[in-house]
Amino acid sequence: MNDRLEQQLSLVIELDQLKSVLRRTRVKSADKRLENSAEHSWHVALMAVLMSEHANQPVDVSRVVKMLLLHDIVEIDAGDTFVYDTVASEQQEEKELAAAKRLFGLLPHDQAEELKALWLEFESAKTNDAKFAKALDRIIPMLLNYHNQGQSWQEHGVTRQQAISVNSRIGDGSTALWEKAQQMIEEATLKGWLKA
Amino acid sequence: MNDRLEQQLSLVIELDQLKSVLRRTRVKSADKRLENSAEHSWHVALMAVLMSEHANQPVDVSRVVKMLLLHDIVEIDAGDTFVYDTVASEQQEEKELAAAKRLFGLLPHDQAEELKALWLEFESAKTNDAKFAKALDRIIPMLLNYHNQGQSWQEHGVTRQQAISVNSRIGDGSTALWEKAQQMIEEATLKGWLKA
Repeated sequence: MNDRLEQQLSLVIELDQLKSVLRRTRVKSADKRLENSAEHSWHVALMAVLMSEHANQPVDVSRVVKMLLLHDIVEIDAGDTFVYDTVASEQQEEKELAAAKRLFGLLPHDQAEELKALWLEFESAKTNDAKFAKALDRIIPMLLNYHNQGQSWQEHGVTRQQAISVNSRIGDGSTALWEKAQQMIEEATLKGWLKA
Repeated sequence: MNDRLEQQLSLVIELDQLKSVLRRTRVKSADKRLENSAEHSWHVALMAVLMSEHANQPVDVSRVVKMLLLHDIVEIDAGDTFVYDTVASEQQEEKELAAAKRLFGLLPHDQAEELKALWLEFESAKTNDAKFAKALDRIIPMLLNYHNQGQSWQEHGVTRQQAISVNSRIGDGSTALWEKAQQMIEEATLKGWLKA
């Protein structure tokens, strides 16, 4: 039992580093600093608790929450990739797999296998739980951007067409959220936050 | 349905502010900045996923995780209180209740009631789920401090006796974690990170 505890604690300590992995979205605070992947993971996991009624198919909320708590931990080794950077996104896969192997490998074997499988399920986006988790993970930066005068879209020159094609998969998990996302994209385009 | 979605989204946007509520613990990164309550909430919720086998009594992990995702959101209005500042901790209760009323009140009524009840359950620390959640919430800053050469203890002149009395309730949720915590307290005292 004590060995298991020490193995689990070694991952807990390692996780602290996700607080230093920066994303492209900014926090709506006085200093408008970049958001990190740890606080993003909290935000999106809590969103799953609040919004599961909008999933297209019934989901197991506790699995969705677990997936979202775990989904970015590979960035500790692999770094964050901007969703609009398609070249980097392709190269990312191998690095993330190696990171998953190392990080989950710190845990007792049974747990390592279970949680790595859950992470892979999220990545594959094929089950109802994973599709909904992915929908939340895609819509939350849009929401923050929209409420920040399109900050990240403007900083990176994102177009309306890019926003549609990168985010349309929200609809696989939640039609209601994809409708909301489309509304935001059209309004952001009218306001000039997304290039027409 | 659309009304419910908009109500839920208004809380989601409000939650962004928890990323700007600073704690006393520092992140183990190059700039050693203070940790915020959003990333802390992620860390401790994921800890619950990893360590539920160490609870004294059987717990419902998904309830524990929900509690921990929610437990600090009242700090958006009420601010964070240092666990070793007993005067401030007493004055905090009323502010937090008002914050809970406002924040959960943004949600559809059924959800507001359910989640506020869960938050109150955490605060009361009487159920098995809440006792375990509290144990995790207390041990995680100790772990981070311990792995940061006792940073927050040293900055605030915390004594061994304070560390024992503030944290002994970890044992109500998990004897294994309280044993680990005591080990860290004794080692930190020997190293001079906690005043003898």
